[in-house]
Amino acid sequence: MATGAVRSRIAFWYDFASPYAYVAAERIMRLPSDQRQRFLWRPFLLGPVFAHHAPDGGGRQQMNPAARANKWRDLERLCLYYGIGWGVQGVRLYPPRRMHAARMMLATRAAGRQPELALRTFRAAFAEDRDIADEAVLADIGGNDADTLVATSRSQPVKDALIRNGPAAIGAGIFGAPSFVTGGELFFGQDRLDQALAWSA
Amino acid sequence: MATGAVRSRIAFWYDFASPYAYVAAERIMRLPSDQRQRFLWRPFLLGPVFAHHAPDGGGRQQMNPAARANKWRDLERLCLYYGIGWGVQGVRLYPPRRMHAARMMLATRAAGRQPELALRTFRAAFAEDRDIADEAVLADIGGNDADTLVATSRSQPVKDALIRNGPAAIGAGIFGAPSFVTGGELFFGQDRLDQALAWSA
Repeated sequence: MATGAVRSRIAFWYDFASPYAYVAAERIMRLPSDQRQRFLWRPFLLGPVFAHHAPDGGGRQQMNPAARANKWRDLERLCLYYGIGWGVQGVRLYPPRRMHAARMMLATRAAGRQPELALRTFRAAFAEDRDIADEAVLADIGGNDADTLVATSRSQPVKDALIRNGPAAIGAGIFGAPSFVTGGELFFGQDRLDQALAWSA
Repeated sequence: MATGAVRSRIAFWYDFASPYAYVAAERIMRLPSDQRQRFLWRPFLLGPVFAHHAPDGGGRQQMNPAARANKWRDLERLCLYYGIGWGVQGVRLYPPRRMHAARMMLATRAAGRQPELALRTFRAAFAEDRDIADEAVLADIGGNDADTLVATSRSQPVKDALIRNGPAAIGAGIFGAPSFVTGGELFFGQDRLDQALAWSA
């Protein structure tokens, strides 16, 4: 599937509101090290992206009730299939408020801990049914670095960085999460993880 | 992934309007014989199903222009990935008028030729960019049996059978195509072919 390009990085665009991004994150973290390290984790918020694509509010894919119910069952089965934890009881916390969590991911970048902490955040939201807007939950996710991370995540540069990820996502052609961008191609959905890897190899 | 049930059949619900159903059909036909024969091919028309789920016309998944453009690129890449022919130039024939083709599939059932002829019909629409509403194309698909098949497909029992597939699909929980139904579970999309097989095994 190579396109003649050199082996390239894969931008992994994720939003903690997306349970399919959670599945993608688990699958990426289980890849062999050389493959896993090709991913650049890019947190963003879907709201501005949807607003861009459809200013009238129609940017989000609309689903009828039958499709929506099937989506949650699909997620349960996907997690069973891949051996991934799943603990969402109904949709109580969905979509989770996740601005602070997304900022914390940007605060981790310097330390290179983003993949690890993003996975812990996803698990809190979707495997442990915890509220990732809760400061205590974020502190737990941050572990020993929590105080620094939370403080940094409240800084203006980090706030600005998350805001900039909106136009950056739109510029990359993103219309939903998760998405993989590599070699000028945008692959939408966790179902395209293998193809994104093959394309970039 | 077995649920304790005996190995069960997998209903493959397809509509010739769905390019992803085309990909699914190609993948099914390449399976080892014992797996391939577990599929029951069920042609249907999405129109009545969408109308049921959202009488106001919102039953179809709505996509913004960015998502729609990515869908067609995704299909090209999927076909490249799986080594499947792809010949749709733009969306000239999309969605194809396919009522007659769907009826012809029901006319083939007695002869057990439905999978073979459905695949030829899908290829005509999506690999060869031909109009499957054209009688000459249908005759070509039918081959030596074409005269009989076309005549049978115009009979009232076959027309009624296709109409009945609408409520049958709705009753099975179908909200889009392709779908796989096995062991009381509905798997939506060609991406779920492997999981449907695993679930039913």
